[in-house]
Amino acid sequence: MSDTAAPDVPQTLEGWFVQHALYHVDWGKVRALAPADLARIGGEGERWLQEAATCGKGDTAAYAVIGHKADLMLVHYREDIDALKEVEHSLAHSPLAEVLLPATSFLSVIEVSLNEASAVAAKKLAEQGIKPTTARYAAAFDQEMSVQRKRLETRLRPVIPSARYACFYPMSKRRGEKNNWYALSGDERRALMRGHGKIGHKHHQQVTQVISGAIGLDDWEWGVTLFSDDCLAFKKLVHEMRFDPASALYAEFGPFHVGIRGQPSQIGQWLAGK
Amino acid sequence: MSDTAAPDVPQTLEGWFVQHALYHVDWGKVRALAPADLARIGGEGERWLQEAATCGKGDTAAYAVIGHKADLMLVHYREDIDALKEVEHSLAHSPLAEVLLPATSFLSVIEVSLNEASAVAAKKLAEQGIKPTTARYAAAFDQEMSVQRKRLETRLRPVIPSARYACFYPMSKRRGEKNNWYALSGDERRALMRGHGKIGHKHHQQVTQVISGAIGLDDWEWGVTLFSDDCLAFKKLVHEMRFDPASALYAEFGPFHVGIRGQPSQIGQWLAGK
Amino acid sequence: MSDTAAPDVPQTLEGWFVQHALYHVDWGKVRALAPADLARIGGEGERWLQEAATCGKGDTAAYAVIGHKADLMLVHYREDIDALKEVEHSLAHSPLAEVLLPATSFLSVIEVSLNEASAVAAKKLAEQGIKPTTARYAAAFDQEMSVQRKRLETRLRPVIPSARYACFYPMSKRRGEKNNWYALSGDERRALMRGHGKIGHKHHQQVTQVISGAIGLDDWEWGVTLFSDDCLAFKKLVHEMRFDPASALYAEFGPFHVGIRGQPSQIGQWLAGK
Amino acid sequence: MSDTAAPDVPQTLEGWFVQHALYHVDWGKVRALAPADLARIGGEGERWLQEAATCGKGDTAAYAVIGHKADLMLVHYREDIDALKEVEHSLAHSPLAEVLLPATSFLSVIEVSLNEASAVAAKKLAEQGIKPTTARYAAAFDQEMSVQRKRLETRLRPVIPSARYACFYPMSKRRGEKNNWYALSGDERRALMRGHGKIGHKHHQQVTQVISGAIGLDDWEWGVTLFSDDCLAFKKLVHEMRFDPASALYAEFGPFHVGIRGQPSQIGQWLAGK
Amino acid sequence: MSDTAAPDVPQTLEGWFVQHALYHVDWGKVRALAPADLARIGGEGERWLQEAATCGKGDTAAYAVIGHKADLMLVHYREDIDALKEVEHSLAHSPLAEVLLPATSFLSVIEVSLNEASAVAAKKLAEQGIKPTTARYAAAFDQEMSVQRKRLETRLRPVIPSARYACFYPMSKRRGEKNNWYALSGDERRALMRGHGKIGHKHHQQVTQVISGAIGLDDWEWGVTLFSDDCLAFKKLVHEMRFDPASALYAEFGPFHVGIRGQPSQIGQWLAGK
Repeated sequence: MSDTAAPDVPQTLEGWFVQHALYHVDWGKVRALAPADLARIGGEGERWLQEAATCGKGDTAAYAVIGHKADLMLVHYREDIDALKEVEHSLAHSPLAEVLLPATSFLSVIEVSLNEASAVAAKKLAEQGIKPTTARYAAAFDQEMSVQRKRLETRLRPVIPSARYACFYPMSKRRGEKNNWYALSGDERRALMRGHGKIGHKHHQQVTQVISGAIGLDDWEWGVTLFSDDCLAFKKLVHEMRFDPASALYAEFGPFHVGIRGQPSQIGQWLAGK
Repeated sequence: MSDTAAPDVPQTLEGWFVQHALYHVDWGKVRALAPADLARIGGEGERWLQEAATCGKGDTAAYAVIGHKADLMLVHYREDIDALKEVEHSLAHSPLAEVLLPATSFLSVIEVSLNEASAVAAKKLAEQGIKPTTARYAAAFDQEMSVQRKRLETRLRPVIPSARYACFYPMSKRRGEKNNWYALSGDERRALMRGHGKIGHKHHQQVTQVISGAIGLDDWEWGVTLFSDDCLAFKKLVHEMRFDPASALYAEFGPFHVGIRGQPSQIGQWLAGK
Repeated sequence: MSDTAAPDVPQTLEGWFVQHALYHVDWGKVRALAPADLARIGGEGERWLQEAATCGKGDTAAYAVIGHKADLMLVHYREDIDALKEVEHSLAHSPLAEVLLPATSFLSVIEVSLNEASAVAAKKLAEQGIKPTTARYAAAFDQEMSVQRKRLETRLRPVIPSARYACFYPMSKRRGEKNNWYALSGDERRALMRGHGKIGHKHHQQVTQVISGAIGLDDWEWGVTLFSDDCLAFKKLVHEMRFDPASALYAEFGPFHVGIRGQPSQIGQWLAGK
Repeated sequence: MSDTAAPDVPQTLEGWFVQHALYHVDWGKVRALAPADLARIGGEGERWLQEAATCGKGDTAAYAVIGHKADLMLVHYREDIDALKEVEHSLAHSPLAEVLLPATSFLSVIEVSLNEASAVAAKKLAEQGIKPTTARYAAAFDQEMSVQRKRLETRLRPVIPSARYACFYPMSKRRGEKNNWYALSGDERRALMRGHGKIGHKHHQQVTQVISGAIGLDDWEWGVTLFSDDCLAFKKLVHEMRFDPASALYAEFGPFHVGIRGQPSQIGQWLAGK
Repeated sequence: MSDTAAPDVPQTLEGWFVQHALYHVDWGKVRALAPADLARIGGEGERWLQEAATCGKGDTAAYAVIGHKADLMLVHYREDIDALKEVEHSLAHSPLAEVLLPATSFLSVIEVSLNEASAVAAKKLAEQGIKPTTARYAAAFDQEMSVQRKRLETRLRPVIPSARYACFYPMSKRRGEKNNWYALSGDERRALMRGHGKIGHKHHQQVTQVISGAIGLDDWEWGVTLFSDDCLAFKKLVHEMRFDPASALYAEFGPFHVGIRGQPSQIGQWLAGK
């Protein structure tokens, strides 16, 4: 084993920092509140959510989560970790926090592979009939890459998709003794990711995927957030991907959380059980 | 490893969305309740269960679970995730919730393999002596498939079986470094599932199985609910299946929960310890 | 891999259903009780334990467990799951429950292998000089098997041994990618279990073993309860078994719980710290 | 695989039963206590610790543990499990328990390998020039073994070493699919343990090791307690051992707990934060 | 397998003992405090942090941690375990502790490999053209090593870097059945660590790394603390390292904690949500 070869590390662009923050609602406390207190907490909750979603430094969305793992999922997109900490800290001091108990959370940063950008650039030039070995190609490629970077920008700093349902799960690439993603060559990894990407693309009309990287930030390597108006679409997409070699051999999945989007104006009614 | 071959993904039909919701009863609180409060909670619990079971959008059943993992299991079948969230949310705001503590839950959707339907169709035609290579076969097959789809409909949107005992457990197919279900060919998987299905069929008189898929929805890939009037039947069925290669080599099992069916009218007495 | 061969599933006889129910004592609450309340709870605890042990549908024994995992282990043998649920439910409504907190539990059913019965029958006939290929043998074998079944009955529905110490642990057979019990042939499994049984037999004077099956009922496949008047005997038996191939290669062990038998009449004193 | 060969089980001698009992201190409760109550609990704690350490049936020592896993570790050496349960039960009823919350515990029994004794005996005879094949050797060996057993007695029923620091961790031998300690031959295990023992011996001046067996008693197979006046010595010893094949290939480690010895007379001051 | 060869154990120098102590803030309690009480706790918290950071026996820094795993991380560098226990104990008795709940912690000791020192020494001599086989070399090497040890001293007993962000995670080297760090030869390990070190060095301007050893002290083998003013730098560094064979094949990672440095004077405002 040589100690000199630099590993072929995938290049990525990073955008918003992301916090998925999941909370239990303390329903016992909610049920015991006087109507005026419940109305006050609901009103303050609405105001807080509205402010978080319109802070000008990113976006915030709320989901009613199904099952015992959590009741409420907040997804925050922000410029940096400071802004994420700020929104988390602000919630801890808001009246809404009186009926919330932290369940789990995940810190990551939206990322897009540069491989994809250069593949798109190369394809465009091929379609235009520009031959790779010409001087014209190099210039056209550079220009196309700068177009691609701009296009990617909207994926790096997006608004949270408005779909009715969201599915969030963290995942890592397997580092098994036989199947070890990080011991594959760059070519092997790129081939696997292309096949993987095709499945995502196939479901593209039904499901919007946001991938955020968490290596060095949290306990899993990526967060995956799926957005769709069809709640079966999550199952169909993840099911198909599971048979794809990139997942079949190399993916480890964390807990899955499924929620229904709620608007800030609905939180009061929701807490009141209406 | 090619990045172009589309994986041979099993085709499934989906029916009711399912929530298995397990709760601890706060017996200390129950014991401390004044008789009138206990009667009130019992009465409201009965009303809530009755309503949940007759909501017209699915079915709900309650089980007294044995052991420390939970005291009460509610099984909800519903049209979609919204209706499941609605029943969960409604319970959180009901008086019954005053004596319940969430223990665990599982979100899935009843699924039936289309492989099975086409195998049944092919078998029927063979019994009728129709040869596969004839034009008549294609038409007869299509018609038989539409019959099969209708037959499956009753399995996709069933009433919860009325058996005295239920056994619920989640499971996943193994993705080990040697034994990896998702790296098998479609033919290998179908052969294994046929053997597996035969064992289920053999115990069919004693045990009704409902399989629900959870890929993309919850932390395990499937939920299995067994229903029987003979509580030894769960052991016999699962024991025999464990030696079947589909389980022996490829199944990972989550926690098992065994419960005794209760009617809405019994909940008050049950809470009161009678 | 053929999908037609029926697996060679071991045949078992089942007897009592068993619940191992482990509780923490809320010592803080006990210490804070007025003497009269403590005396009342002790008295009711004694009455409840006495009734559970003499209910006519099985047996119940209580153990003071050492260590932080639990303080009290109740072992219930009952005719069916309903009777187990009944005793659990009855405890939840008894005054004794005021000072108990559920720690863990295990549901299983006492089982005896039929392999053993037929091996004993064959050995007896061999000792009598009856040759296996004769007609006389078949008749004698059938008669001997019916004798064996009766003998096993006392092991299937026993009284809980009166030994001073009990050691309870759940276990499963390994389903590893290389060492997979359920992928062995029936002959391999039987050979391994014979060697395993010999070690149990060797310690037979010091330790009584009760094996109960939990496949399809709880999270491990078996419960093992060892009873002895010598607390070192548990270590010696389990230590020797660990080197036996059936354990060395194929056993996975759950948590171990060691307790000291207490009589119903002792519970009041025990709670009072005397 | 033959089912007749008896496994080559290592022979051990057993001494004191041991409980490592770790507790959180409820510092919030301590801070809220009136000075007189704190003084009373401190005084009773001192009395209880003094009594436990001088009960005549073994020894007891207390350690202030660093980190969130526990605040206080009590190590009890006793004649049998009954005496261990007695001291645990006595603490649960003492005023000191008012500020303690159980964190974890471990039950084991001090053990010494007989291999070691016979190796020492053989070495002594070799040094005296007695040849193994002579009649004189057998008699001398038997006599030497009885000397060795007496010598070991002081290691089987020791006083707890008075060193300032203790490090406790449980461990098991690996039963992996490739590296399986229990599938090694007796000769292979003995060779590995000799190498392992040499490292312990090398650090002997700085660190006293007490090994206690827990197979059949608790969830790990052994408890290791290291005692030293140099808190770096734990790191150096365990670090060196980790490269020894017996550990490198075959050891699984549980949680590590490091504490500072306290005398009974110090507990009041300690609780008061002085 | 020989039992005589001494393993080739890496030599290390040790410096400060380190505690990473992570706490939840009890925000419900904070919100309910009267302003005067909150001001008092904030003031006492400031005083305590100031004292801890200037105790003369090491250093202390505080970080606001993002996510549900903790709210506050204290990093203490101290001369020995006694001084670490002292600062932990002192916090438990301080008013600040009224609003803190222990989350997790990690005990380790800053370590530097001696391999590195001798490699640096050898390189320097090579640059000066001194040939390894000469007598002059040996003397020059010894002198250079003493220079290196002095240089390392500042890394063994550092002040905590003042960077805005910190990332802390524990890790161990894998002891798998195929990839087992502790079964590699010393040469293999040194080659892997050299490659690993190069990546660290490459990011050296953006990220300061402090490695502390925990073998024999806590549940993972090392703690890694990264310090940077650029919160993306953690992701970039750890991402690149993951493809390095030393990590790809041999590293196991514990939970990651990311925090923002706070000064003692900020704690009151921070608790008050300003």
